[in-house]
Amino acid sequence: MDDKRIDILKLNVKILENERIDDLERNGYKIIQNPKEFCFGMDAVLLSGYASVNEGEKSIDLGCGNGIIPILLEAKNEGEKYFGLEIQEASFDRAKRSVMLNGLEDKIQIDKGDIKEASKIYGKAKFDVVTSNPPYMNENHGIKNPDEPKAIARHELLLTLEDLIRESAALLVPSGRFYMVHRPHRLLDIIMLMKQYRIEPKRIRFVYPYVDKEANMVLIEGIRGGKPFLKVEEPLIVYNKDGSYTDEIYEIYGKEK
Amino acid sequence: MDDKRIDILKLNVKILENERIDDLERNGYKIIQNPKEFCFGMDAVLLSGYASVNEGEKSIDLGCGNGIIPILLEAKNEGEKYFGLEIQEASFDRAKRSVMLNGLEDKIQIDKGDIKEASKIYGKAKFDVVTSNPPYMNENHGIKNPDEPKAIARHELLLTLEDLIRESAALLVPSGRFYMVHRPHRLLDIIMLMKQYRIEPKRIRFVYPYVDKEANMVLIEGIRGGKPFLKVEEPLIVYNKDGSYTDEIYEIYGKEK
Repeated sequence: MDDKRIDILKLNVKILENERIDDLERNGYKIIQNPKEFCFGMDAVLLSGYASVNEGEKSIDLGCGNGIIPILLEAKNEGEKYFGLEIQEASFDRAKRSVMLNGLEDKIQIDKGDIKEASKIYGKAKFDVVTSNPPYMNENHGIKNPDEPKAIARHELLLTLEDLIRESAALLVPSGRFYMVHRPHRLLDIIMLMKQYRIEPKRIRFVYPYVDKEANMVLIEGIRGGKPFLKVEEPLIVYNKDGSYTDEIYEIYGKEK
Repeated sequence: MDDKRIDILKLNVKILENERIDDLERNGYKIIQNPKEFCFGMDAVLLSGYASVNEGEKSIDLGCGNGIIPILLEAKNEGEKYFGLEIQEASFDRAKRSVMLNGLEDKIQIDKGDIKEASKIYGKAKFDVVTSNPPYMNENHGIKNPDEPKAIARHELLLTLEDLIRESAALLVPSGRFYMVHRPHRLLDIIMLMKQYRIEPKRIRFVYPYVDKEANMVLIEGIRGGKPFLKVEEPLIVYNKDGSYTDEIYEIYGKEK
């Protein structure tokens, strides 16, 4: 911890109260998180393993939070530049500081703004790849603090699924790729909206916590203006029967067992 | 084989050239098949295990072929009556003889007719359950013999997916259940059409040949006029790594290992 502190002071990156620095175990990259607000979850890690950004391509992560997806994508891919758009000031600021902490200012650009305005901010057909790990929950009743960072990150308070898919379609070049992680119970809405905005679903992978449990996440790849043909890929199983992670999860996390 | 022949002669059920009698290993039920035309596959068995027909309910299988689904449903459920509709004369005739062979004329009624006319034949809102294992293939170019029984059973030559779903919706009572087995690459069409005809997809189960292979079948349950909420159930894995059937497949087939 002291060593990290020293590095940070050298890089002149501020660490605020309640923040901590986590090691991503990829290229030595680190991320600043505030556990009182929002920490990245397995969904973000799985999405960053599912998406690909090829040499020379530009990607954007819509609702990038603390920047986990652009940072992991940069670690794993040969893309030219990785953007992240975030509406919440504190998350935006943390994402920017994490980029600095890793010395990735040339490769990753974090912007503050509203996803609903994304194609106005960047212009149309500007990205080869759009990724998103959006708010999952469309049942917003009973939320006590709709201004709370966690509520905004998890519930469709500032952003609906339709907003996200409409803006993603507008941002993508023809044949550009859209990658999203979401909840299986929203699959029908996802498919209907992707079809409506001409992002053709091409690959779907369901994530099952155990081999005998229902899916609790879905990874989807769509192609802007793509030809219809869907592949439902092999199941992604998170835990072995004994509760340990499966080999594939270790691989995606890049950790030693 | 000789014993079976004697039973059949007793029951006065004709067996034609190229036909054989297969034991379903359920209630002692048998089925007459002609391997030169079409034999039931695992998809039909999985669908009959996925669907349920409750006490007092009436079900219909659209495109029942040799009658496998009504016969297996009758073996496993407490429904009042099971119907089967089949357009091909030879399959229709075989299905009727299989019903007689099992002495199930009171419980199973096989009718000859076109699924596209089903709601005219039976009337609207007449069934609690509709099942179907329809032709899968929508790419019909290159078919040499479009009159051949196998081609009709496998390709959308006489029936499109939309015909099937439209008629299923018309046949079902409000809150009636629709069960289908199909191919994952058609999932988007299935979902769009079910939504269009107000059969809400409620449960989807993907069938993976192996735990590390893409899905090659999909089982789906929809509710006529149901409230949107989809569950993607645990994966159904067919084979263990060593190529033997998984325990669940043995259970569905009702066989001893």
